[in-house]
Parts: sequence; C-alpha cells; structure tokens
Amino acid sequence: MVFEYPIRVEWGDCDPAQIVFYPHYYRWMDEATLHLFEHVGLGWTALRETYGVPGLPLISTHADYKRPSVFGDRLTVNVRVSDWGRTSLTVSHTFLNGDHVSVEGWEKRIWSHPDPDRPGRLIPAVIPEDVKAKFA
Amino acid sequence: MVFEYPIRVEWGDCDPAQIVFYPHYYRWMDEATLHLFEHVGLGWTALRETYGVPGLPLISTHADYKRPSVFGDRLTVNVRVSDWGRTSLTVSHTFLNGDHVSVEGWEKRIWSHPDPDRPGRLIPAVIPEDVKAKFA
Amino acid sequence: MVFEYPIRVEWGDCDPAQIVFYPHYYRWMDEATLHLFEHVGLGWTALRETYGVPGLPLISTHADYKRPSVFGDRLTVNVRVSDWGRTSLTVSHTFLNGDHVSVEGWEKRIWSHPDPDRPGRLIPAVIPEDVKAKFA
Amino acid sequence: MVFEYPIRVEWGDCDPAQIVFYPHYYRWMDEATLHLFEHVGLGWTALRETYGVPGLPLISTHADYKRPSVFGDRLTVNVRVSDWGRTSLTVSHTFLNGDHVSVEGWEKRIWSHPDPDRPGRLIPAVIPEDVKAKFA
Repeated sequence: MVFEYPIRVEWGDCDPAQIVFYPHYYRWMDEATLHLFEHVGLGWTALRETYGVPGLPLISTHADYKRPSVFGDRLTVNVRVSDWGRTSLTVSHTFLNGDHVSVEGWEKRIWSHPDPDRPGRLIPAVIPEDVKAKFA
Repeated sequence: MVFEYPIRVEWGDCDPAQIVFYPHYYRWMDEATLHLFEHVGLGWTALRETYGVPGLPLISTHADYKRPSVFGDRLTVNVRVSDWGRTSLTVSHTFLNGDHVSVEGWEKRIWSHPDPDRPGRLIPAVIPEDVKAKFA
Repeated sequence: MVFEYPIRVEWGDCDPAQIVFYPHYYRWMDEATLHLFEHVGLGWTALRETYGVPGLPLISTHADYKRPSVFGDRLTVNVRVSDWGRTSLTVSHTFLNGDHVSVEGWEKRIWSHPDPDRPGRLIPAVIPEDVKAKFA
Repeated sequence: MVFEYPIRVEWGDCDPAQIVFYPHYYRWMDEATLHLFEHVGLGWTALRETYGVPGLPLISTHADYKRPSVFGDRLTVNVRVSDWGRTSLTVSHTFLNGDHVSVEGWEKRIWSHPDPDRPGRLIPAVIPEDVKAKFA
C-alpha cells in the first residue's frame, strides 16, 4: 500500500542557490510518515491508546538526491512501509516531481513501549501482526 | 541591562532572493529572550521551580525591517526588557549588522501560572518585584 | 476579496510546550501571501514579467496570539489585502481554528522596482490601479 | 583534520516529545560542513573565485540516531572529510553530547563546475590535490 502525500515547494523552503534546502526533505518525510499512519487508522492517539505506543523513535534516516526542486514545484511523496522487522520498520519515500524522481529516502523507526524501569524512556516492542496487516 | 546575543546567518536561513527569510528573525528573537533570561538566572528550570512559571506565553510580536542580511553576516541582537506591566512584559530586540540596524522587533509576553481550574492551561500572574530587579 | 489558505499543524511545527512554535505563523503568512497573489494571477513570474516587480520587500510584520494551536489542528488562513498605500500594501491574515481565531497578523510590504543606480537593490514604485483591481 | 562546531539546542529545535526534531541535525550538518570549509580557507567566495566551484551539490545524506538531545543541551559536532573520491567527497559528522554520541551522520557531495552546455546547471569536476591537502 502506497500513500500519496502532496507537497508544494514554498519560497522559504529554498536557499540562495534557488533550490530546496535539503533538510526540508526530511521534514516532509516525517510529515508523510505520520499522514501514512493516520491514513491506515494509526494516528498518534490510536497508537497510544490502542497499542500503548508513545512514538516511533528513529534508528536511521537516509536520502539520495536525484534532481533539485525549485520554488513553486508541486511534488508527490509516494510513502510506504517497505520493510517490517520484529521491533522496527522502514518507511520509504519517493519524491516525484512531474515525470522524474527528485529524491529517494527512508526512515528506520522503532515500535516502542514505555520503559517500565526508566520513566520517560522507551524500549523496543514486538510489532503486532494486525498492525502490519493495515499496511498491506 | 542589555544582553548581546550573537548570530551568524547560515545558508539555510536565506531564501532565493539571497537574503534572510524573515521568520528566522522571530526564531532568533525567541532564542535571544531565553538567553537573556538565563543570563539573569531565570532559565526555564528556575522560572518553574522558583517562581512557578511554566512559560512566558506570547500576546503579540512585531518586527520592522530596515536592511536585509545575507549569508555569512554576523549579527548581534541587543535584547532587553523594555517595558514591565503588572502581568506582562515586553522584550525588545535590535539586530545590528556591522554599523547599521538590520531589524527592530519586540515580543510582548505574559508572566503566567498554571490555571488551577483548567489543567494544562495558564493564567496571567503578577510579576514579582525581585524578578524585575534582576534586569536592572 | 478574501483567499482561504489551508494549513495542517505538523509535528515539527510544535515545541516542547506542545503548541505551535510562533515563528511558523510568519512562515505561513509568507506562504499565504504568495498563494493569494497567485490566485489573482500575480505569481512571481507575472509580477516580474508584467510589472517589473522582482519582489515585495517587507517593511513590518506583526501578530497577535489569541489561542494556541496544537499538533494535528487544521487551520484556515483568511488572507486579504487590507490596505493599499501609494507604494506599499498591507496583507492581513486571520488564522481560524474551528470556530475560534487562533492568531491575527499582518505584513506591510513594498511594491518595488529594480534600483537603476544600484544593481541588485530595489526601490519603491507606485502601485498600478489595475493591480489593486485584481484584489477587489 | 577534525573541526569542532558548537551547537546549543534551542527551544524551537525541539518537538512535542521534548527532543530535537530530527531534520535539525541535517541543518546543523550543512552548517558544520560550510564552517569546516571556511576554516581551511575554502569559504563560498574562495570556492567560486579560486576553484570555479559554485556549490557542493548533494548525492546522499545519512544519519544514525544514538540518543536524543533536549532543550538546552550543548553539543559539539566533530566534522571532517572522511573520504575523497575523484569528483566527490564525504563529510562525516559526530554529534557529541557530554560524554556520549548523540548522532552520527554524513553527507556525500559533488565537487562541481558550471555545465558549459546548460546554463545554471552543474557537472562533476576532478578535485584538485591542493584542495585535499588543506584538510590533512
């Protein structure tokens, strides 16, 4: 299942070279991941109340830059869970700009529960099968 | 009492017109205010623990733009409390770029306590005289 | 004429107090202004090619904060030109969050031409009547 | 040669989970890279005027998150060129927070010249040996 997250490149997203300042692609990945999860019924409230998951902490993030985007471009992020581990998952993001790919990126995140021994800290938890099924 | 907060204008702070994207001046004002408060011994922890103040919510903010700044400029923000009300205060910010003023701005904020009737909300509180004295 | 610019408050727009970090309201005002201008046929390309206007430099910006917004809120910015000067204009922004106003703000900007005496600099120019008419 | 770039985690860098919102680590990497280059005498002006290099476009970026940072933390980024290719280079960034590593990241960038056939576009160029020597 692939979710499409639309982006319009705004003036303030671009740098003096007149292209997108690259950290914004990561901002958009974070947004696209949350919107994907909401789309399958796993918004932050559902994650917390149904699954006891206070957040999806990051292990790693990555991006490959294919072609710059400029002010006014309308991009589509194709976002999906591309890999399920036992306690982690990888969310992949393809930024399309018209007929070409602008950026390919991914975020590896942990499915977490509160750590019973350390208040405020999180520990990895096993991802339920019914969660995985929502993204099929 | 005037505190000097130094800023270097970074690449990502500038827009395709090759000048600072204006919301960053407000980001720097927020930072300069917190550094001013820390400088007089009123960091976030002291505010909360000594005065029961969980934050300084905003009433209004304002900026007048005199001259643009560009990538690589080194600015100094002269920040001070310019006005004390009974439950509010105004923090003024002068952005100096070499020998000229780049931006003049201010933030009007509330001295607050937790609202006993509405958990998570804040209400205005009278500013203690010893707080005002720290900024003299 | 009032243009409606929709905003969804994203995770990264919010601070540790779990409300919108205020400089983002100015980012959204800048975006809303450009979208308003595009809506009436005055995108950046038209401004430059039809009117010789390379940009709309800022004189002042201002915001009054009425009520905080939080992650996941869907806001509407009602944006309009609220005042026309001879060489300047004021763009007003009302941020609606459901049935209440979250923020009221404005930007005062210059209608500009390139300065013939100083390459790369701008000077104020008289706003044509047909431009004003587009916003009626 | 390792350059140390200091960071103070500001209020607006943190999210509702009260930790650094991860795209800011990439913003800091971009800053640290430019400061490293300036430190060895290769600021943007020198790159352009001495070497005909208008910028260092990105191929890929990556980060591994070890431990969150919070408001008020003072980090040091240890930044260095960790790999030289024929026309590309990798800049590595270790974010230290007191005695532990918070984030490890890298940026792979192109040494570029203007493309003579396509105005405004860049093409990879061979990295001069004297440039590499500056970072030894």
